[in-house]
Amino acid sequence: MINTRKTTIGLYLLQRLKEIGIDTVFGVPGDYNLTFLDVLEDDKEITWGNNANELNAAYAADGYARVKGAGALLTTFGVGELSAANGVAGSYAEQLPVIHIVGMPRSDRISNGALVHHSFGNGDLLAFIKIYQQLSVASALLSVSEAACQIDHVITESLQSRLPGYIGIPCDIVNTQVEVNACNKLDYSIPKSIPDVQEAALQAIITTIQQAKHPIIIADVCALRNNMKKEVAELAQVSGFPVYVTPLGIGIVDRDLPNFRGCYMGAVSLPQINAEVLGADLVLELGGKRVDTNTGVFTSSLSPSKTIEFHTNVTKVLHSSFEKVAMKELIPLVIKHFPESAKININRLIKNTLGPPAQRAKTPEGDTLIQDYFWNKIPDYLPERSVVIVETGTLSFGSMNLNIPKDSIFISQFQWASIGYSVPSTLGAAMADRSRRVFLMVGDGSFQLTVQEISVMLLHGVCPIILLFNNDGYLVEELLHAPNRKYNSFPMWQYADSFRYFGARLKINQERRGMNKSKFNIGVQKKVKTRKEFEAAMEQALDQPNCIHFLEMICPSNDAAKEVWQHTELFGV
Amino acid sequence: MINTRKTTIGLYLLQRLKEIGIDTVFGVPGDYNLTFLDVLEDDKEITWGNNANELNAAYAADGYARVKGAGALLTTFGVGELSAANGVAGSYAEQLPVIHIVGMPRSDRISNGALVHHSFGNGDLLAFIKIYQQLSVASALLSVSEAACQIDHVITESLQSRLPGYIGIPCDIVNTQVEVNACNKLDYSIPKSIPDVQEAALQAIITTIQQAKHPIIIADVCALRNNMKKEVAELAQVSGFPVYVTPLGIGIVDRDLPNFRGCYMGAVSLPQINAEVLGADLVLELGGKRVDTNTGVFTSSLSPSKTIEFHTNVTKVLHSSFEKVAMKELIPLVIKHFPESAKININRLIKNTLGPPAQRAKTPEGDTLIQDYFWNKIPDYLPERSVVIVETGTLSFGSMNLNIPKDSIFISQFQWASIGYSVPSTLGAAMADRSRRVFLMVGDGSFQLTVQEISVMLLHGVCPIILLFNNDGYLVEELLHAPNRKYNSFPMWQYADSFRYFGARLKINQERRGMNKSKFNIGVQKKVKTRKEFEAAMEQALDQPNCIHFLEMICPSNDAAKEVWQHTELFGV
Repeated sequence: MINTRKTTIGLYLLQRLKEIGIDTVFGVPGDYNLTFLDVLEDDKEITWGNNANELNAAYAADGYARVKGAGALLTTFGVGELSAANGVAGSYAEQLPVIHIVGMPRSDRISNGALVHHSFGNGDLLAFIKIYQQLSVASALLSVSEAACQIDHVITESLQSRLPGYIGIPCDIVNTQVEVNACNKLDYSIPKSIPDVQEAALQAIITTIQQAKHPIIIADVCALRNNMKKEVAELAQVSGFPVYVTPLGIGIVDRDLPNFRGCYMGAVSLPQINAEVLGADLVLELGGKRVDTNTGVFTSSLSPSKTIEFHTNVTKVLHSSFEKVAMKELIPLVIKHFPESAKININRLIKNTLGPPAQRAKTPEGDTLIQDYFWNKIPDYLPERSVVIVETGTLSFGSMNLNIPKDSIFISQFQWASIGYSVPSTLGAAMADRSRRVFLMVGDGSFQLTVQEISVMLLHGVCPIILLFNNDGYLVEELLHAPNRKYNSFPMWQYADSFRYFGARLKINQERRGMNKSKFNIGVQKKVKTRKEFEAAMEQALDQPNCIHFLEMICPSNDAAKEVWQHTELFGV
Repeated sequence: MINTRKTTIGLYLLQRLKEIGIDTVFGVPGDYNLTFLDVLEDDKEITWGNNANELNAAYAADGYARVKGAGALLTTFGVGELSAANGVAGSYAEQLPVIHIVGMPRSDRISNGALVHHSFGNGDLLAFIKIYQQLSVASALLSVSEAACQIDHVITESLQSRLPGYIGIPCDIVNTQVEVNACNKLDYSIPKSIPDVQEAALQAIITTIQQAKHPIIIADVCALRNNMKKEVAELAQVSGFPVYVTPLGIGIVDRDLPNFRGCYMGAVSLPQINAEVLGADLVLELGGKRVDTNTGVFTSSLSPSKTIEFHTNVTKVLHSSFEKVAMKELIPLVIKHFPESAKININRLIKNTLGPPAQRAKTPEGDTLIQDYFWNKIPDYLPERSVVIVETGTLSFGSMNLNIPKDSIFISQFQWASIGYSVPSTLGAAMADRSRRVFLMVGDGSFQLTVQEISVMLLHGVCPIILLFNNDGYLVEELLHAPNRKYNSFPMWQYADSFRYFGARLKINQERRGMNKSKFNIGVQKKVKTRKEFEAAMEQALDQPNCIHFLEMICPSNDAAKEVWQHTELFGV
């Protein structure tokens, strides 16, 4: 006999969210989601994101998911969910499990096709869930009789595949009682590999490794998404192979791993890195994703005849495919059975052949704040366990060669590349783990798209160090396509006044702030124009971990990291 | 022989946009749309919207379309177009022809399914155009051989149906030469009615009208969308019938038409209006759309046994349907053949029976800025040819009984009801016709979603009078669902400082401003706390038509127009 218990649909959904580690739900209130918001607000363990708009909320949920493993978003039917579409699509593209809950009209109005507001007025109230079928791995319009199963299905699929899931909940059934299985836990482990096929793959790998003279490892995004930082480090240690990351894989290996050699992205890599990878006769590619921005616009050297590809659900050894052999299971076996003869002494290899890891070009002299100074200097200020968030644009290029410190998390949308993403993502990441220092690097153009989330940071009392690069224009587009086009200019704002405009010092906001009430404060908020000013400001900011900081970095208008200048042709349209 | 000429795909598209009256294209640059942006920038007659983000751009294009008849939006593949989804969906729901042009990856990359950035990285580069098939009446991915036909098809369908159209243009074919028909003009007139069916409808209408004792006219949104303000006024004059509008129809009749009786929306109407409509034995419903927010949540009295429905493509006379009989053709015939015996002397009817039109309740005494004061007072400040834009929320309710002056345009998303819409829509409307005074009424909550468009208003030197109602919270949701919920509160901002934060006085922005260079300036920017202060500020603002104005109206936190308090149960979820 199955042991059952009574609960409500809303409470059941909430319980499942908590089970997957969610303690914050991002979103915006709207009439159709208020009944579920009541459930959230009545639960003392859940924090409501209180975002300024739905796109920002979706970005925040994505940033949160990159730190916590999964995120949650609540919007309202039609207007709210569609505003979030680009944010959720970004989670889909970059593989983050975000559970998107949408408050919908009453069940009877949905089935009758009532002409309600927030609809097209044509009776089709399923139009938006249809759109979201393109943006989620699983979706459901909850019904009373099936709600528990539907919720479990969407959340399980989302976590297994690391893609967004969509749950539409009619506002009238949130508090409806249902009987559910009392003790079943969600099982979202990845399906087991087929043992025989896995064994064959393992043997092929061992044989291939034994024949290699210059093997290397390139660790990429799906290793991050499969939460395999530990396994990658172990494989590096056991094998002694030199290890590279890709732009999407930054953070899967710490800079203090002796094997770590830097970021590989084909022709866009630092020349020494490119030479090292070209010299390899075997690449262990861990969780690779070969999109243009991750491969130096398809210039990576990863021919099948010298590559072993480890993926979430398939393994390819040179020209052979092993279906349904998952890296999460296979790599520990490779580590366990690693052939002694294939082991490399990495220290000796570095000493005799490779030399020390590649470095960015030396910092140009002077006191001007330029990116070629910044990217060489910023590592000095990043403590262990940092979260480093970099916006898309010229900053992306410099950040590719940023080697991040131990146990840190790096967040940048190299693939989806939606400008404006980084500001709300910073909010989400900071709320996901308040024990980490969070560093945001954002350009002025991108900042304008989602600026209002600054006010939500102040509300929640999170403490990022925000570095806004004011170079007065969409510089990356000027460089990649056409300089001197007026469409790449936009109004200059009083960026350094952001905290003031968004009400940091208003008494009403200070009373309203829920978190860190006594300790939270405003730290640095100023324009910095020289390296000396920047360094002084950074030292102050690091000394004040309970403060939020805003440095408006005044840069020359045509300044970009060397990486951009060298590769404009490759990236141009 | 067809007379042909040579042009490029980009220039052909631009020419068609101009033909339908477009002089401003809203949007945000992104790498895939830069080649088409070059074409736009090189044309001296076209203004680039230069919006702060794509959702705002879509809202602006919608506002522009409400003034000009059609709008245009340019976004980039994936990230840009999806950010705009809610805005375009609003145009779809509320029937505005917005041509959405999307800059796409190179044709070969689309057909090869290349793993480009801004895609899901799964080879499906048609995922987003598929989504937009739900949000547009026609869509096309341009090919070199068919481009001209495809462009004509999308624009024609969009204008005929008054719904958005989608044009995807691969970045590599913008400057490709094509040969096109030299002299064909776009024909987007609505297809002609079938003469016999139309004649039958006309006769049925005349017979029905002749039998009515208390006939009235209710003019609604599709009369606006079919551009029939003149015909509605003529029908009113010829018939003498009392005329009502609906919330979605506000603006189709001026307040100085003697027949005008106010806004009807079922049980939510002013009691006198409700009584007048309930007393009618025949309703001529012109372009009706019976969504909940337009009908007092389905309480309108419009039973088929007493209603003649005139629609864009169909006419219903009591229980009979006449397919493909279009109001645009039919109403002029009704006017022409209006039966003498059915004519009413409206002045006599008012004098003997109806009395003067219904009025909102008298203004409560005192000097506090409350909405029941505001909605009675604001008509004094609205000149002829105003554009009045009202955000969704508590303000909507008061605005339903706002009778707007002659030749004015009223903009409010009563159906789609997406908060945040009004600020960018104000930009679009103001750019569409600089000779009109523009008044924006927006709540603090809604303002936060799309605030950055204030900076774009400053860039283009448009001169709206912005009235921000600061009641500190999403009041409408508190009233309609649950008071005292924390999720309806959000941070307070320094709203009255908006112009300063967004750089109005920065020299660089003043130099950058293209329009009204010498005349444009900042007018009123202050908090107003009393009626006296409000009236003084409005007088100053009206005296300065070349200035932009911002009045932060400090209202009691639980203040709303009487219309809200009376109907919270009806609108609650």
